[in-house]
Amino acid sequence: MALVHHPVVDKNGQTIAAAVTSLDLHDIARAARTYGADRFYVTTPLMDQQALVASIIDHWVRGAGAHYNPDRRVALDLIRLQPSLQAVRDDMASLYGRPPQTVVTSARMADSDIDDAGLRTLVRKGGPLLLIFGTAWGLAPELIAQADFRLAPIEGRGDYNHLSVRSAVSIILDRVCR
Amino acid sequence: MALVHHPVVDKNGQTIAAAVTSLDLHDIARAARTYGADRFYVTTPLMDQQALVASIIDHWVRGAGAHYNPDRRVALDLIRLQPSLQAVRDDMASLYGRPPQTVVTSARMADSDIDDAGLRTLVRKGGPLLLIFGTAWGLAPELIAQADFRLAPIEGRGDYNHLSVRSAVSIILDRVCR
Repeated sequence: MALVHHPVVDKNGQTIAAAVTSLDLHDIARAARTYGADRFYVTTPLMDQQALVASIIDHWVRGAGAHYNPDRRVALDLIRLQPSLQAVRDDMASLYGRPPQTVVTSARMADSDIDDAGLRTLVRKGGPLLLIFGTAWGLAPELIAQADFRLAPIEGRGDYNHLSVRSAVSIILDRVCR
Repeated sequence: MALVHHPVVDKNGQTIAAAVTSLDLHDIARAARTYGADRFYVTTPLMDQQALVASIIDHWVRGAGAHYNPDRRVALDLIRLQPSLQAVRDDMASLYGRPPQTVVTSARMADSDIDDAGLRTLVRKGGPLLLIFGTAWGLAPELIAQADFRLAPIEGRGDYNHLSVRSAVSIILDRVCR
């Protein structure tokens, strides 16, 4: 899995680099560990944000937090910091011997080409797979266009689908990996 | 739904009143709206915490936040502040003409007596139903004992089940209400 902070869009559709939210790292790492993800990549090109991510990991994996809450350590130990999605792909290619298939998620996916059942089939096939989530108002259009697959949006009981990325990750992992 | 801040337990099993986390209100309200919950009760007996919840609701439902992000307003408008779970039950009894059936959740439920399928059946039956989540390290044992039903814990792909309450709410609503 990867949580992307750039390029993402703001509420007006402009491409931005979003700030890292500490609770995203905690919640998504815990969900990733619960559902058996190999790694949880956090990508940001901003040096100060990379330093923030590194300090959070350091506190909870090696520092006082690891002693205070070992369950949190086990989760945050899945996090890998990378400057870009391309760097994630490169890292996975060297780890698994070939580049991953990529699946992007969005609450406003106009042209999805895979649903939960299709993604479940991909997961069961094995082979490196990268599930990509965006912060702020979602992944930039060029990232969505470049992926191998576009996952259909989560639907609830009506037209409202403004879940947090923390909720969306949890729900998709539960649907696909449990 | 209700998010309880007292009585809950800390990591040592001692009963405490947990502090309110702003992001709990946002994430859970957004999930509640997505999956069609009627109301999202937040309970705390602490006056300063009640004031905090009131100020968050005020900002996003009636203040500058409502203009900045109308989708957030629609979600946080579901929140009802109450001092205790008994006050929630009384409020629901006066709203629906009879008290709700209550379902408690916990990651460490030793004696669950309902699973997702059972809860889905309860929801479909109609009638007032209150789904109760705890903050900190979970609901106090006496709250769990008093409920009509104890929901089986969420299971992922292994022994690790340390999801945030934000993730747990999202997953349970998706399993039961979509």
